[in-house]
Amino acid sequence: MNRGYADLEDSYLFHRIGQKVAAFEAEHPDAHLCRMGIGDVSLPLCDAVIKALHAAVDEQASKASFHGYMPECGADFLREAIARHYVSRGIGLEPDEIFVSSGASDDLGSILDIFERGIEVQIMEPAYPAYVDANVMDGNKVIARESGKENGFLPMPDNALPANLIYICSPANPTGATYGRQQLESWVEYAIANDAIIIFDAAYEAFIEDESIPHSIYEVPGARECAIEICSLSKTAGFTGTRCGYTVVPKQLERDGMGLNAMWVRNRTTRTNGVSYITQRAAAAVFTPEGQAQVKANIDVYKGNAAVLMEALDKLDIWYTGGRNAPYIWLECPDGMGSWEFFDFLLERANIVGTPGVGFGPCGEGYFRFSSFGSPEDTRLAASRLLDLLG
Amino acid sequence: MNRGYADLEDSYLFHRIGQKVAAFEAEHPDAHLCRMGIGDVSLPLCDAVIKALHAAVDEQASKASFHGYMPECGADFLREAIARHYVSRGIGLEPDEIFVSSGASDDLGSILDIFERGIEVQIMEPAYPAYVDANVMDGNKVIARESGKENGFLPMPDNALPANLIYICSPANPTGATYGRQQLESWVEYAIANDAIIIFDAAYEAFIEDESIPHSIYEVPGARECAIEICSLSKTAGFTGTRCGYTVVPKQLERDGMGLNAMWVRNRTTRTNGVSYITQRAAAAVFTPEGQAQVKANIDVYKGNAAVLMEALDKLDIWYTGGRNAPYIWLECPDGMGSWEFFDFLLERANIVGTPGVGFGPCGEGYFRFSSFGSPEDTRLAASRLLDLLG
Repeated sequence: MNRGYADLEDSYLFHRIGQKVAAFEAEHPDAHLCRMGIGDVSLPLCDAVIKALHAAVDEQASKASFHGYMPECGADFLREAIARHYVSRGIGLEPDEIFVSSGASDDLGSILDIFERGIEVQIMEPAYPAYVDANVMDGNKVIARESGKENGFLPMPDNALPANLIYICSPANPTGATYGRQQLESWVEYAIANDAIIIFDAAYEAFIEDESIPHSIYEVPGARECAIEICSLSKTAGFTGTRCGYTVVPKQLERDGMGLNAMWVRNRTTRTNGVSYITQRAAAAVFTPEGQAQVKANIDVYKGNAAVLMEALDKLDIWYTGGRNAPYIWLECPDGMGSWEFFDFLLERANIVGTPGVGFGPCGEGYFRFSSFGSPEDTRLAASRLLDLLG
Repeated sequence: MNRGYADLEDSYLFHRIGQKVAAFEAEHPDAHLCRMGIGDVSLPLCDAVIKALHAAVDEQASKASFHGYMPECGADFLREAIARHYVSRGIGLEPDEIFVSSGASDDLGSILDIFERGIEVQIMEPAYPAYVDANVMDGNKVIARESGKENGFLPMPDNALPANLIYICSPANPTGATYGRQQLESWVEYAIANDAIIIFDAAYEAFIEDESIPHSIYEVPGARECAIEICSLSKTAGFTGTRCGYTVVPKQLERDGMGLNAMWVRNRTTRTNGVSYITQRAAAAVFTPEGQAQVKANIDVYKGNAAVLMEALDKLDIWYTGGRNAPYIWLECPDGMGSWEFFDFLLERANIVGTPGVGFGPCGEGYFRFSSFGSPEDTRLAASRLLDLLG
């Protein structure tokens, strides 16, 4: 058996939150909890996507329009739509550099298949737990790049550290911190100098509003020679339960004399039989003008939630990052409280549920995550309770 | 990089078929080709599935009924429906021994994640090419268990050979050969004696009509201690373009002190975010009484095609296996022709396209695969052309 599994640490974060919330609700059956810990979207699929789904289902009902196996790397119509979307942002990509996936989380782990086991992998912490777990499973050596308030939770390259792979998520989960253009340029330079590959997780790019912040690593010169970009429609278009994303592997990307695009083609054609036709039609609808307008309207609702929470934190003079260009707000627990201490305090005293920062790595201790994916009503209520409790 | 990719052989089979067919069509634009090589279904999704799909899409359109992230190992409603389906066939499985997947081909490769790289893997040949490729990619040592007419294309255990993993597909692709109960008992005994794991690919079980042939490896005593079963709705319910399957990992399955069910839970929760809600509702509809009746009606159409082809081969006194309990017919090329020679002969002389057996491994030389997934009209036409050409 793969011994890497024995090295995994048990992930108790969401289990422990669930237990604490259940115990609280049992004791306080009439309390109205504001759930600001949610990492899932709450708004339904937009109308353009729903129409595309129904139309695709109808196609599958008739022999004349029925679609069987899809191309393993993605349907041409979707790869081309995504390529046009990149071009509209000034990034030239060929459709066959874009691979349709069942979501970013799937490809963030599967991409490791094309690398040797046992490589050195830098992960920015606090981190999405799956980055660490997928690498531990594969027997890779995880080099935690811990961060804190002093660097805005944005670790920078360190020439003293080795790396074969570097995971960068910007805007980041859980911190909401975003790398600026010059910072990403430094990472690309470091990757090229060290023959490393950047796995750029752009799952939250649709939340960026500052024009100076790159949405894609390919906005940085040289990135095509050193970076794979993994994207998702989960947060962009509410596809968390619909499952579609895309992964970019440029043809210029080569290591050890092997072309990574060709390796990924071979991986996909061997290890998958493509993504559902119905789902791919839904995804293509996201990239139409009406789809883009509708998903932006949903994101604006979440951004409104973030603004309400940020306004309360500003009034309370609580330090935070994220919120403006990300669906997450990462705040310093007040009065020197620890992450779990603040969790209990908020739950008991304000009936607010959030996520303890320490659950994303040791350097998250003393920090706390709010998400903007809840309902506007609950978010306003949470903000007013925060002001009452801490003001 | 993963050096296993350098050891892969290029797969030219379907590419070469495509080239030959394109060249023929360019020269004979008026010829009507009978495509008997198709490995994809041609009938649309059944009515129960279409209704379930539309209903699920409607749920995703409204905030009150919207579903976000699904449980990574599968929705309870689907795991329970599949467990009841097993129980109806006399096999007791718990829902949490059943993992919903995006299809058998996905899990046939992904399951390797829980094993060490470099293990010894027995693969029955002629084989579905992805078995070999997924293992070569992982650096495993493939032990080809070659088969032929003398053993009915059903290799049996050999105590002189090592094995950590054993891939068994029954009914098999490409040969359509099916293992009987006693033969599977021998494999289970061998696996237990050698501490090996059987990966049982049951993708074609719905085509079995002989009551004595097991549909599931778990019909064999002891299989829960040595077998993982990988199933698909692709051929059972026409889901090739809809993507859903399921993988059974019994809780009794342990190796090196590690429980494989728990390892697979950890793999799924780390490396996926579950299967689309809409797709899982479609899959659940397959297991309703009306869904079962409707998918059986489609399979009966394909079985009718197989019967037409078998009748022609019987009249021509051509040896074959499969057809009765499988969607594939595997025949010996007449007059000692090689696989590609017969391909060209059939294409030129009868305008029939099939699949050369040698494309599934060297021991397939001299054999040829017909599939029953084409249209009834073309299948009847192909049978009558075969009789004219070879009779």
